[in-house]
Amino acid sequence: MNCIIRPCMVKDCKVILQLIKEIAVDYKVPPTDVKVTLEALREDGFGARPQYDCYLAELPPGETNKEGGSIVGYVLSTYTYSAWKGRNLYMDNLYVQPQFRGRRIGKQLLEKAAQVSMAKGCCQLRMHVGNWKANEMDFLAHHGGEDLTAKECWTLFRFNEDALRRLAARSTF
Amino acid sequence: MNCIIRPCMVKDCKVILQLIKEIAVDYKVPPTDVKVTLEALREDGFGARPQYDCYLAELPPGETNKEGGSIVGYVLSTYTYSAWKGRNLYMDNLYVQPQFRGRRIGKQLLEKAAQVSMAKGCCQLRMHVGNWKANEMDFLAHHGGEDLTAKECWTLFRFNEDALRRLAARSTF
Repeated sequence: MNCIIRPCMVKDCKVILQLIKEIAVDYKVPPTDVKVTLEALREDGFGARPQYDCYLAELPPGETNKEGGSIVGYVLSTYTYSAWKGRNLYMDNLYVQPQFRGRRIGKQLLEKAAQVSMAKGCCQLRMHVGNWKANEMDFLAHHGGEDLTAKECWTLFRFNEDALRRLAARSTF
Repeated sequence: MNCIIRPCMVKDCKVILQLIKEIAVDYKVPPTDVKVTLEALREDGFGARPQYDCYLAELPPGETNKEGGSIVGYVLSTYTYSAWKGRNLYMDNLYVQPQFRGRRIGKQLLEKAAQVSMAKGCCQLRMHVGNWKANEMDFLAHHGGEDLTAKECWTLFRFNEDALRRLAARSTF
């Protein structure tokens, strides 16, 4: 049976935080680099100014994962803006627990993100993937995604908090 | 004299649209790929639900560019969310007209974006740059930016509107 795809609720944030940590392990990110807290997830998703949208994949009744829970995947996205194209959806995470892969749950979550994009007037859905994640890149390409780093040579830059603080402090205007 | 950095106002959208088109030429993007309109820029920046922030670089009194105007650069950004790090600022464009480069106007605009990031509780400022734009990459690195595509192998994927429509239509949940 297919999973149920439904909006994340405040009560689900605890499980989502666990799944976020699982991705970090999968991506070999040191646990100390995962700064998000349960309080931040709750406030940023369900507070006065929501910063992200999140949908869950829930197992059909009767099935559980090895932790005894029913939530086995999620998609977390946010809105961005392209000066050339207008509104965009940016998918920060699309995750399915390893033991539930191969059941088309990722496809269901991606379709949900596409529905949200269309409903919100977004003309693009963008995301980043590690270029050593061949399975993830194949999944995205198989469903119609284009590798813009290969096609248009886009490179991602980041200023971290220290760099931002230095820049903000030395302003010359 | 330094440029004045100030928030974009509705009346400035017409000039911003011209500058957006200049970047597209600079990036060899076909003009037909620039879908944004004056109405969209006004609505999306200053309507009921603002989608972006924009700051302008304005020449000091007495100076004009070759079009007879005083706005010679801008930075356009939007908020995104990282499941690992929380709130982010995403800088979609940072642009200075070619004849005004070398006057540290880009640096002023970047510092403004950093100030906005800090003020809004964003722990990162991210952007994309074409990897054939050596000057832009050098500028970002010089001011403390890290090339995450080189360092962490991030690759950008996109689903365009046609791909989104196909995905949304065939949903299996």
